[in-house]
Amino acid sequence: MSTLKVFTDLQAAPELIDWLRESIAPHELRVPAPTGANVLSDIPTDPLMQEADVVLGQPRTDAVLTSSKLKWLQVSTAGFTRYDTPEFRTAMQARGIPVTNSSHVYDDPCAEHVLAFMLANARQLPRSLATRCANGAPEWLAIRRDSRLLQGQSLLIVGYGAIAERLVELLAPFRMEITAMRRAPRGDEKVRTIGPDEVTAALATADHVINILPDNAASVKWFGAERFAQMKEGAIFHNIGRGTTVDQDALAAVLASGHLGAAWLDVTDPEPLPDGHPLWTFENCYITPHTAGGQGGESRVLIQHFLDNFTRYQKGEELVNRVI
Amino acid sequence: MSTLKVFTDLQAAPELIDWLRESIAPHELRVPAPTGANVLSDIPTDPLMQEADVVLGQPRTDAVLTSSKLKWLQVSTAGFTRYDTPEFRTAMQARGIPVTNSSHVYDDPCAEHVLAFMLANARQLPRSLATRCANGAPEWLAIRRDSRLLQGQSLLIVGYGAIAERLVELLAPFRMEITAMRRAPRGDEKVRTIGPDEVTAALATADHVINILPDNAASVKWFGAERFAQMKEGAIFHNIGRGTTVDQDALAAVLASGHLGAAWLDVTDPEPLPDGHPLWTFENCYITPHTAGGQGGESRVLIQHFLDNFTRYQKGEELVNRVI
Repeated sequence: MSTLKVFTDLQAAPELIDWLRESIAPHELRVPAPTGANVLSDIPTDPLMQEADVVLGQPRTDAVLTSSKLKWLQVSTAGFTRYDTPEFRTAMQARGIPVTNSSHVYDDPCAEHVLAFMLANARQLPRSLATRCANGAPEWLAIRRDSRLLQGQSLLIVGYGAIAERLVELLAPFRMEITAMRRAPRGDEKVRTIGPDEVTAALATADHVINILPDNAASVKWFGAERFAQMKEGAIFHNIGRGTTVDQDALAAVLASGHLGAAWLDVTDPEPLPDGHPLWTFENCYITPHTAGGQGGESRVLIQHFLDNFTRYQKGEELVNRVI
Repeated sequence: MSTLKVFTDLQAAPELIDWLRESIAPHELRVPAPTGANVLSDIPTDPLMQEADVVLGQPRTDAVLTSSKLKWLQVSTAGFTRYDTPEFRTAMQARGIPVTNSSHVYDDPCAEHVLAFMLANARQLPRSLATRCANGAPEWLAIRRDSRLLQGQSLLIVGYGAIAERLVELLAPFRMEITAMRRAPRGDEKVRTIGPDEVTAALATADHVINILPDNAASVKWFGAERFAQMKEGAIFHNIGRGTTVDQDALAAVLASGHLGAAWLDVTDPEPLPDGHPLWTFENCYITPHTAGGQGGESRVLIQHFLDNFTRYQKGEELVNRVI
């Protein structure tokens, strides 16, 4: 294989970029001049990218479509909304360009994050950390009475992918009753898996509902008034997928009615919610600012994930996290 | 076996006391007149207790020592400090009275509670729930950078009993490097277990240190200035044992110095800490009010635990959670 030109717009520390450069040698690394933009910003088309064989980052789709030499694109996020259009898919498939993402980098932190939500709720952490009540006081008795074990509770995961798989592993010792829903069950899932046609019954019995739906045309406001109403009284709703998959007015209404026990959200639409938004007003609505996927050393993990795929690419092996 | 008189000072709903009464029939249940006292209060000697064969609850030691007919005492807590004296042990052993506690009732919630602490810390929940920062803002980048995976971190558990065993089960999928310390390792522990003579080296390498020491003469202020200083820079200290096992001035000093990453405490000495106490002043000192053992339906679980042991007692089998 001749020398490849690898372009990245990854915003990482200089020593990590150097490590990437050394790791892919003798292939060439090309980086744009620093812009100060963050990883979620649009990076304008860069002439260096137009000449690249391989791209790692979050390029604009128009820049990808006009890159005449591109052979492989690895997106540096787990979400890939901007690339998930019929036009883009068709163009990439027609040119034989595989598109991978970095979802493996985010599986572990996202799974740990939503387990942190579940346990913080079960153990009443926000309330317990805010009180100074005495042993035996009415508030103390109430906190102990409202505390739960995850052990033995039931869980519905909506959207079964790598995050759900890792979560199912983490939950194994809790002996929860777990059901997953995905658009098309394959039969190789590690828990009982249903299609959307069976979700109504599953919503009605779950103590916890976790939304990990991706953002696409079919998932917009998937959780609306009807589905919230189908949930069991006191159920806990978690969202670590995308904010667009929830009808937030419906969620506010079902929290106001007291039907849901609590909502734990890492994603909203928009992010952050504006100051006057109703979801800020509920004591039992807990919002983290889209940090579920984060971890110290994230850039290093992202680069390692790319390097692993780069090795596979050079050997002609199947790429991990291929999405197109 | 003739009909036994079972006395309980358990403060439970009338229907649960009725359930207990029906479950032990034809043996007789005797309960004191309601006092309004909570489960942790001293219940004065009750004449009904003096005639009991079996006692379930938290009787005063003098009342136990003067109970001429007592054959078995089951304490309704996990801690049993007031009974853990040479005098009481000797007296019970001399009379052949087994003493059991209810620690199994608290193993599961305590293990889930400390895992909630660990994950809330790893995922930066208190900080994330308090912010409204935008994706890409400096605070957002800082939270993601400071977020951690438990996966792969190291843990030292000080005090290896049933809570530790359950915690080790819950942590299995995280692939942490776990070491436990107990006074006398038996060799049947489920993780690498060391004695106190090896603890200095273990403290120096653990990302998380969990204190589950019981309250006794040997454990008073076991965690003092020297042991805190031996911990790794940035380590997270958790206490779900007893408040007396920590030198709180030393803990405040090591938090003030920045040496520890955070402290998560379910127990303090006294409880609650007085309003002016230094441990209230640290942003990275998180305190829940001795609620780790709580769960909805706790009285039911306590009674079930007693009934299971009552069956064993009648069959002459070994009692579970025997402490004397």
